[in-house]
Amino acid sequence: MQVCDKCHKDPSSYFRAYSGEHLCKKCFCRSIEEKAAKTISRYSMLKYGEKLAIGVSGGKDSLSLLHVMKKFFDDHGKPENLVAVTIDEGIKGYRDESLDIVREFCSKLGVQSKVLSYKELFGVNMDEAMVLRPSEKMSSCSMCGTFRRRAIDLAAESIGADVVATAHNMDDHVQTFMINLLAGDVERIGWMYPEPIEYISGMKKIKPFVEIYEREIAFYAMQKEIPFQSEECPYMNESIRTDLRQFFNSLEDAHPGIKYNAYRSMTKVSDRMRRPMQRAGKCQVCGRDATGDICSVCKTRSALLGKGIY
Amino acid sequence: MQVCDKCHKDPSSYFRAYSGEHLCKKCFCRSIEEKAAKTISRYSMLKYGEKLAIGVSGGKDSLSLLHVMKKFFDDHGKPENLVAVTIDEGIKGYRDESLDIVREFCSKLGVQSKVLSYKELFGVNMDEAMVLRPSEKMSSCSMCGTFRRRAIDLAAESIGADVVATAHNMDDHVQTFMINLLAGDVERIGWMYPEPIEYISGMKKIKPFVEIYEREIAFYAMQKEIPFQSEECPYMNESIRTDLRQFFNSLEDAHPGIKYNAYRSMTKVSDRMRRPMQRAGKCQVCGRDATGDICSVCKTRSALLGKGIY
Repeated sequence: MQVCDKCHKDPSSYFRAYSGEHLCKKCFCRSIEEKAAKTISRYSMLKYGEKLAIGVSGGKDSLSLLHVMKKFFDDHGKPENLVAVTIDEGIKGYRDESLDIVREFCSKLGVQSKVLSYKELFGVNMDEAMVLRPSEKMSSCSMCGTFRRRAIDLAAESIGADVVATAHNMDDHVQTFMINLLAGDVERIGWMYPEPIEYISGMKKIKPFVEIYEREIAFYAMQKEIPFQSEECPYMNESIRTDLRQFFNSLEDAHPGIKYNAYRSMTKVSDRMRRPMQRAGKCQVCGRDATGDICSVCKTRSALLGKGIY
Repeated sequence: MQVCDKCHKDPSSYFRAYSGEHLCKKCFCRSIEEKAAKTISRYSMLKYGEKLAIGVSGGKDSLSLLHVMKKFFDDHGKPENLVAVTIDEGIKGYRDESLDIVREFCSKLGVQSKVLSYKELFGVNMDEAMVLRPSEKMSSCSMCGTFRRRAIDLAAESIGADVVATAHNMDDHVQTFMINLLAGDVERIGWMYPEPIEYISGMKKIKPFVEIYEREIAFYAMQKEIPFQSEECPYMNESIRTDLRQFFNSLEDAHPGIKYNAYRSMTKVSDRMRRPMQRAGKCQVCGRDATGDICSVCKTRSALLGKGIY
C-alpha cells in the first residue's frame, strides 16, 4: 500500500505528478486550501474585515471556491462577510438545475446567496439574445461574457461587497494568456497579473485558485462530495480555448509541471507589462467604466435590442 | 483562370490565405525579397558597407536567405561583403551531401564560402559526441546548438564579418518564444526582440526572415529552383518544438494569420522585456562571453572530453 508522503499514516489517494508526492485524501484537501490561502496572501487579495462576493455558477470550480473560502472566513474572518452571487443568464433547462444546486449548497454551508438575472439587469436573457443577435459572428460566449462580468459586479455592489472573487484556475489563466497573445491583445496581458487592480468603481477582483491546476480542483470537489452541475451550456461554442486546453493537457502529461512553469513565466511577463489602468472615460450611456465612449455591455444591448436602445 | 492580384497579368500560382491575395510566381518571389528588405530596415539590421556572414547549412531556409541576400547586396551593397559560413558537425552520411550542395550553390551565385568543423574547433565531432556524452539527458540538439552558435561566431570572426545572419523564420521564432515561456526562461524572451543586440564581441546577430512564414520560404525555394538538402539529421530528437509546430500549423489552417498575430504580440512582449545584456564576466577557460564562470561550450567540451579538459 502506498502511504501518504505528508502524514506517513493514511493510504495515498492522489499522485501529484509534478511534485512526485503521494497524498491521502485529507492531506490533499488541506494542500488545496493552503494553496488558496497562500495565493490570497502573496498577492494581497483580501484584507481582514473586507466583504467578499463569490461568483458562483454551480460548476465544480466555483462551488469548490465557496467551500474553501467559507473555511477561510470561519478561521480568519467574519463568516457573515461572505456572500455567493449567482447570475441567471436565462437558459432554459440548463441554468435551472444549477440554481437549485447553488441554493442548496449555500444553505448547507450557511452562506448568504444572491441571484440576479440578465433579464432584470439588461432587459434580455440569453435564450432571447441568441435569436436577436444580428449575426452569428456575435458569439454566444462573447455576449454572455460581457454580460456576466457586469452582472457579477452589479450583484457584488448590491450587497455592499468590497471584493469579488471568481474561481478561475491556473488552466483558465494559461489559456487566457495564450488567447490574448494569439489575438495580438498585449494590453490585456498587462492586466493579468494576479495582484488585484483597484477599478474606478473601487471593487477589487481576485482569483484565489489562479495557482491551482484544474484537475486538482475537480479532485477536491470529488473528495468533498461537492454536488456540481456537469452538464455543459447548450450555447457553448468550440473555440481556440478548447484547442489550447487539449494542447496544454497533452504537454502536461508528457512533462509534468510544464503548465505551472508556463504559469510562472506568464506571471513574470504580465508583471513587467503592468501599467496603471487607463483612467478611461465613463460610458456615455450607463456611466460605468469604458475604454471608449460606450461600454461593451451597452454596445451589446444596442445590437440586440435595436439601434439607439441602450 | 485566377489572375495575380498584384500585376493583374500572370496566372496566380500562390494563394496567401492570411491576406486573401492570389500571387503569380514573380510577384510572390518579389514579395519575399521585399519583406526581408523591410525587416532589415525596420530593425536596423545592416548598415551600408558592413560585412555579412550568413550561416548556411544547406537546408531550404538558409539557401533561400543566401539567394535573397545576394540580390540585396547586388542592389544595395558591395557583393564582395557577403560570405557564406558553413559548419561541418561531423555527421557521417548526412553532412557530406549538404556540404556539396552549399559549395555548388555558392559557386553558382559567386559568393565566397567558408567551412569550419566542430572537430577542428572543439576537438570532437557530433558522431563522437553521441558516444562520449555521459548521459542521454545531454540531448544531441542541445550539444549541437551550443557548438553551432559558437562555431558560426568563430567562422564569422575569421573572415572579419561585422554581422552574422541566420535564416530563422517566423515559425521558428514563435516556437522559440513558447519554448522559453514553457521553460520558465523569461530572461531569454527579452533577448528575442528582432533588433540586434551588440554583443561584447561586437558581432551583431540578425534574422532577416523573422517576419516570413516557413511555408512561404519553402515555396520561394521551390520557385527559384534552389537545390536543398531535405534529409533530416539522424540525431534529431522529437521535442516540444515539434508539438508546437504542429499546434501552430493547425491553428493557422483554421485561422489564417493567427501565427502572424502571435508573432506581433510576442515582439511587443519581448520589446517590453528588453534589458541591456548583462555585461557578464568572461569565460575563465576560453575568455569569451559567459553568463557564469565557464561558458556553455567549455562546459559541454568538458563533459565530453573529461573533467578538467576544456
